[in-house]
Amino acid sequence: MSLNIPSSPLKRIVIIGGGFAGIELVKRLEKSNFQIVLIDRNNYHQFQPLLYQVATAGLEPSSISFPLRKVFHDRKNLFIRLATVKTVDPRKKQITTDMGELTYDFLVIATGAGNNYFGNPNIEDFCLPMKSVTESLRLRNAIFENFEKALTADNAQDRASYMNFVIVGGGPTGVELAGAIAEMRNKILPKDYPDLDFSAMKIILIQSSDRLLNAMSESSSETARQYLSEMGIELMFNTRVLDYDGIHVTLKSGEPISTRSLIWAAGITGNSIEGLSPESYGPGGRVRVNSFNQSIQHPEIFVIGDIAMITDQSDYPNGHPQMAQPAIQQGKQLAANLICLSRNQSMEPFKYRDLGSMATIGRNKAVVELPKYKFKGFFAWLLWLVVHLRSILGIKNKLFILMNWTWNYFTYNLSLRLIIKTGNSRQEGKP
Amino acid sequence: MSLNIPSSPLKRIVIIGGGFAGIELVKRLEKSNFQIVLIDRNNYHQFQPLLYQVATAGLEPSSISFPLRKVFHDRKNLFIRLATVKTVDPRKKQITTDMGELTYDFLVIATGAGNNYFGNPNIEDFCLPMKSVTESLRLRNAIFENFEKALTADNAQDRASYMNFVIVGGGPTGVELAGAIAEMRNKILPKDYPDLDFSAMKIILIQSSDRLLNAMSESSSETARQYLSEMGIELMFNTRVLDYDGIHVTLKSGEPISTRSLIWAAGITGNSIEGLSPESYGPGGRVRVNSFNQSIQHPEIFVIGDIAMITDQSDYPNGHPQMAQPAIQQGKQLAANLICLSRNQSMEPFKYRDLGSMATIGRNKAVVELPKYKFKGFFAWLLWLVVHLRSILGIKNKLFILMNWTWNYFTYNLSLRLIIKTGNSRQEGKP
Repeated sequence: MSLNIPSSPLKRIVIIGGGFAGIELVKRLEKSNFQIVLIDRNNYHQFQPLLYQVATAGLEPSSISFPLRKVFHDRKNLFIRLATVKTVDPRKKQITTDMGELTYDFLVIATGAGNNYFGNPNIEDFCLPMKSVTESLRLRNAIFENFEKALTADNAQDRASYMNFVIVGGGPTGVELAGAIAEMRNKILPKDYPDLDFSAMKIILIQSSDRLLNAMSESSSETARQYLSEMGIELMFNTRVLDYDGIHVTLKSGEPISTRSLIWAAGITGNSIEGLSPESYGPGGRVRVNSFNQSIQHPEIFVIGDIAMITDQSDYPNGHPQMAQPAIQQGKQLAANLICLSRNQSMEPFKYRDLGSMATIGRNKAVVELPKYKFKGFFAWLLWLVVHLRSILGIKNKLFILMNWTWNYFTYNLSLRLIIKTGNSRQEGKP
Repeated sequence: MSLNIPSSPLKRIVIIGGGFAGIELVKRLEKSNFQIVLIDRNNYHQFQPLLYQVATAGLEPSSISFPLRKVFHDRKNLFIRLATVKTVDPRKKQITTDMGELTYDFLVIATGAGNNYFGNPNIEDFCLPMKSVTESLRLRNAIFENFEKALTADNAQDRASYMNFVIVGGGPTGVELAGAIAEMRNKILPKDYPDLDFSAMKIILIQSSDRLLNAMSESSSETARQYLSEMGIELMFNTRVLDYDGIHVTLKSGEPISTRSLIWAAGITGNSIEGLSPESYGPGGRVRVNSFNQSIQHPEIFVIGDIAMITDQSDYPNGHPQMAQPAIQQGKQLAANLICLSRNQSMEPFKYRDLGSMATIGRNKAVVELPKYKFKGFFAWLLWLVVHLRSILGIKNKLFILMNWTWNYFTYNLSLRLIIKTGNSRQEGKP
């Protein structure tokens, strides 16, 4: 087994990761004179901002997943490989994957970030994370399985543990997910499960700081708090989860909560690759780079997106926000810079253009902060829809998502309440 | 843990299986005076005739899966439980499930049929079956994983084993699947994998008898054979697969074929439940019943759909065909008969109304046999589409399937070429 990349007189750029940053980079290098190798663990690009809608049965995984090979049909000098990168050897300019080794002239690390469990293996084992399409589907299955199990539970306490949901983390993911679960409880679940008493179901959102949506203004935080409270979500501020055994959540305050569903949206950490020098890393598992997204220790290595931390820009001393926009913009700038390098021109430093931020809490409920305006409610929600629809790859996906949203809006009926498991190989999951 | 079905003065009908037969029965009992318990292993009804399109990335699983609770919103006296039935005790009138026990006044077995491997554990372990949504998704994943692996294969022989497909069984499933894979090879795959040589890819369809579509006329068989040959499929008649080790297929004729994908569509057997007397069973694991779909040994037990075999109707001495129509019609008749029973009226024997049969081979290519007409080609294909679209549950599913079909027809671009695995529990499948 080997990666089977043909040798070429062109210089080779190896890009690890087909997320927002990696995709943008590959697109912008279309007219360049490099051999490009794109490596990802999945054969598709995933649109992370809508994962929570997959998890709550509002969208199909296929609507927010786009086959990489389809994105780049008819591209010359591009080789896509499904592989997991194990290590990088900057001295030999070589990576090792589960499918073999490969040398590079330039390496671009765009591996993104994964869940941060802050070193607690119990939480990692028992919680439900939501950082990928796979995890979102697993969460969807768990949600609906738990209601089925609630029906067959022997006593009220056990039943409650199946019906309660605890979401940890009050950023956009946690807020959006809590809102979506509350809407399901308020509109759909009592019709699906007429024998269950939904007044007993608790949805608890736990935030370690004193407000939601830390990255936004205090007024947006307060709006989000009001929206969630109106929807019946219990909010716990200045609270940390210390432990979880699959049923019982241990809080710092000592208060006991029992739930089979602890959803983890509390923090992320860079998906690091072995082989970079230890001093390459900054806080949060991010790789320190200069304004050209270039590793300071290893100049042929570039790092973009969530895992990159540009350390020399005074307006973002802790690096840029780990969101789609900085990733896309870094991919774009790096493409220009690599083309400069190939022409022996000097590179341009990355400059982040903040387009604003937004979060949706539910039907007609969102907060939006643009550089000049701040607003909330129906129009904020509508803008959120338009922006996300525009960003989705492919006309067909846009069309299907729009149809799903329209359908769900008018019927209140998320139709994807299916528990479907595939197993991980042909042997697993056989009945 | 228990099934938690409330006691009731009404007589209880327990129905095992939410397939075509079970769903039709529950629908038709809406105005009846029974307590109804519907038990299924899945929380959804699956539309089996279109499974092959899920497997070949043409349709989403959600388009052909319909949540049972949604089908029966607002039904009184209906209890749906997700459980696996282990045994039935006709003497005690009780079933045992993995979620506890339950007594019945009437039991309806509508468990359908599963794959028949004719006692070969190697084939069962290594082949790819396609009798459920789960199996179809696993087949889809395997198809696209194999092309990725072909890219990294070390030699031509290994590469060929990843690219070759062998389909066993020349009934509608095998024919439809072979056609769909051939269309992928002819239209999509060379664009997705420009570095692979698709002239080397073989699609082989193996049939044990001397013609395809045994249940249809010889002229339809011949049309199907011509269509498949034109599409570049190798057909092997009067051939049987004796063994398979995951790579090498052993044929009765001794000829060696190497493939990582042996797709099994060669036969089915009733999904039996332990506890019925051995003399209840006829050939193919089917339960022998009289013309009222009533077990001869156990008169409170009724059996409908693929697993039922009515033995006393001279025009169908081997039982009715194991397809959607007999199942639906038996569900309908049994509903009427159970209502008769509750009114102390006598039951009516089941009479099968043959509406004809059809199979699609590819774009604009199908064969249709109606009671009075027989035709093929574009209009047969169009009728096939209309009939299947009409039979799908739910307006939204109809709409989304129609859109997918239209899209695929004009773009030739099956867009669901995603390898997504969920694992079977929250622990499994973590990266």
